[in-house]
Amino acid sequence: MIIDCHGHYTTAPSQLEGWRRSQIQALDGSSAPPKRADLAISDDELRESLEKAQLRLQRERGTDLTIFSPRAMAMSHHIGKAETSQEWSRLCNDLIHRVCTLYPRNFAPVCQLPQSPGVPPANCIPELERCVGELGFIGCNLNPDPSGGHWKDPPLTDRWWYPLYEKMVELDVPAMVHVSASCNPCFHAVGAHYINGDTTAFMQFLTSDLFKDFPTLRFIIPHGGGAVPYHWGRYRGLAQDMARPPLKDSLLKNVFFDTCVYHQAGIDLLLKVIPVENILFASEMVGAVRGVDPETGFYFDDTKRYIDAAPGLSAEDRHQIYEGNARRVFSRLKLPA
Amino acid sequence: MIIDCHGHYTTAPSQLEGWRRSQIQALDGSSAPPKRADLAISDDELRESLEKAQLRLQRERGTDLTIFSPRAMAMSHHIGKAETSQEWSRLCNDLIHRVCTLYPRNFAPVCQLPQSPGVPPANCIPELERCVGELGFIGCNLNPDPSGGHWKDPPLTDRWWYPLYEKMVELDVPAMVHVSASCNPCFHAVGAHYINGDTTAFMQFLTSDLFKDFPTLRFIIPHGGGAVPYHWGRYRGLAQDMARPPLKDSLLKNVFFDTCVYHQAGIDLLLKVIPVENILFASEMVGAVRGVDPETGFYFDDTKRYIDAAPGLSAEDRHQIYEGNARRVFSRLKLPA
Repeated sequence: MIIDCHGHYTTAPSQLEGWRRSQIQALDGSSAPPKRADLAISDDELRESLEKAQLRLQRERGTDLTIFSPRAMAMSHHIGKAETSQEWSRLCNDLIHRVCTLYPRNFAPVCQLPQSPGVPPANCIPELERCVGELGFIGCNLNPDPSGGHWKDPPLTDRWWYPLYEKMVELDVPAMVHVSASCNPCFHAVGAHYINGDTTAFMQFLTSDLFKDFPTLRFIIPHGGGAVPYHWGRYRGLAQDMARPPLKDSLLKNVFFDTCVYHQAGIDLLLKVIPVENILFASEMVGAVRGVDPETGFYFDDTKRYIDAAPGLSAEDRHQIYEGNARRVFSRLKLPA
Repeated sequence: MIIDCHGHYTTAPSQLEGWRRSQIQALDGSSAPPKRADLAISDDELRESLEKAQLRLQRERGTDLTIFSPRAMAMSHHIGKAETSQEWSRLCNDLIHRVCTLYPRNFAPVCQLPQSPGVPPANCIPELERCVGELGFIGCNLNPDPSGGHWKDPPLTDRWWYPLYEKMVELDVPAMVHVSASCNPCFHAVGAHYINGDTTAFMQFLTSDLFKDFPTLRFIIPHGGGAVPYHWGRYRGLAQDMARPPLKDSLLKNVFFDTCVYHQAGIDLLLKVIPVENILFASEMVGAVRGVDPETGFYFDDTKRYIDAAPGLSAEDRHQIYEGNARRVFSRLKLPA
C-alpha cells in the first residue's frame, strides 16, 4: 500500500474559517469568543470537502492512506494567547478525528498542538494525550517557531521542549516539524518560512545531543528536508568540522525526510543522498502548489510520479518509502482489517 | 581563466579581530573607540595571511582569480550603531583594497556595506561610491537581515532599499545577497541562517516587481541559491499559482546563483535545473566548511572538482560558469594586461 505521510485538511468547509475569524475578532474583547460547539459542519459537508479533493486525488494518483492533520498555515500559533490556541487546536483536531472516523481506510490522524509563543510546550501535553489516548491519533505537528517568523522561542534542542518530548516518547508518537503562517513580512510562508523552518530544525538537531537524551524520539522534516539534502555535503562537513559524529550515526536514527519536492531532479537528489530508510513518501496534497507543471503535464505535487520514475530504486526500496518507513516511524498506525 | 566569485578574507591577521574587539568594548562608553589608523598590519603580514591559504588553494585547485570581500560572519551589522558599521566597514574595505593592490591578478575587490538595523540603506551610498569610484571595487555584499537573525528590516523588494539600488545601477555593480552572523539562538550561522537568507531573498524577488523597476539590477544568491534549485519545481509552481511570469522571464535576467554546494549530487542538480548563464563558479574558500570529505578524499569546498566532473556540460558551458558569467555580472571587472 501507499501511505502519504503529509496531508493537511486544507479543504475544510468554510464554517471552520468563519469560526476562526470570530475567535480572532473576539480577541480585542469587543465580542464573546465562539464556543467549540458553535461550529456546525455536517458529515455530508465533510464528505463533500474530501470527495472532490483528497479522496479524488488518492484515487487518481494511486495512493491509499494519507496521514492527515489540520491545515498547517491555519495553526497560526502567534495569534492570541495560550487559550486561543487551546480552543482552536481542540476544534481542528476534533474535525480531523471526525474525518478519520468517516474514512478509516483513507486517513490516519495527526494533531495540531496548542502552542503559543513564550508558553512552555509542556502546556501541549494534555491535548496530545487526549488526541493519542482518547482519539487514536498517531503523531503530532510541532511548530519550531510559534511566533510565526520571529523565532523567539528557544531552539528545538533546548530543555524548554523536553517535557513534551518525554510525553511523545511515552506515547510512542513522532512529530512532523512544521511551521505555520508567517507574520514577518520578510518571509513568504510556503516559499520561504516553511523551507527555512525545515533547514533550521535540522541544523539545531545537528549541533545538539538531543537524541542521546531521547534515543527513541522521532521527527519528520517535511518538504524534502528543506535545503538539507541539496547541501548534504555542507552538513556532513560542518558536523565533521565540529568534531561531531557522522550524520548517519548521530541523526538518522531519529530524523526522517518526506518527499514533498515538486520536480524530478529534486526527488532524484533526495533519493541519492539520503538513505532509503529515512525517506517517507508524501505529497502535501492539497497544499502549497496546486497547479500542473507545464513541463510535464502533471500536477507539481503528484510526487508519486517522481518516485516511480526515479532511477536505481529496488522494489524493496520503494516499499520502504511508500509504506515500511511510515509504519515504523508512525508506530501507532493500525489499519482496519 | 577561472574566476571564483565568492571569497571572503577569513584569514586576516589577528590585529583586525583585535581592533573589532576594542570597537565593541567601547560601545558601552567605558573606553574610547579605536581609530582606523590604529590598525597596524604590514604588507608582509597580509602576504603571509594569503600565501598559505587562498593563494595556495588557488594554485592547488587551478583557479585564477577570487572576487574577494571582507569576512561575511564578521560584518555583524547588528552590533552597535550606524557609525559602528561605518568605521568597521571602511576599515575592512580598505584592507581588501590593499590585498587587491598587492595581488591584482589574484583578487578583485567587493565591499562590505555599513548597514545597520533600522537605518535606511541609503546610508551605504557614500561607502559604495568610495569603494567603487575611488578604489576600483566591482561589487558589494548586501545583507538582507542587518538584525542578524531577527529579520526586522523590510524585505529586499521594499522601497526602503531603492536608493541603494539606484546607486548600484548607476555604478553598474552587482550585489551578492549575504547575511552575516546570527544573534538568534535558533539559527546556526553557516548551517541555517546563511541558507535561509538565500532562500528568503529569492522568494522576496519572486513575489515582487523589483526588476521591472530596475531592469539592470543584478544579484548573486550564494551557497548555490540556498534551497531554491532543490525546490525549483516548488518555485515554478508557486509563481504559476500566483499568476506571475515564468521564473526565467521574471527573475533570471537579474538573479544568479553561485556554486558553493559541497557535494557532487548538489552541483549536478544545480547544473541540471538552473540555466548555465545564471551560474557563477564559486567555492567560498577559505570558508564555512574546511575539512576533507572522507567519501572523496578532497576538500568539501573544492567545488571545481564537482563542476569538472559534472555530466553534460559543453566546453562553452564550462567557460560561462568559470569566467563568462562572472565577467558579465561583474561588468566592472578589468584584469591587468
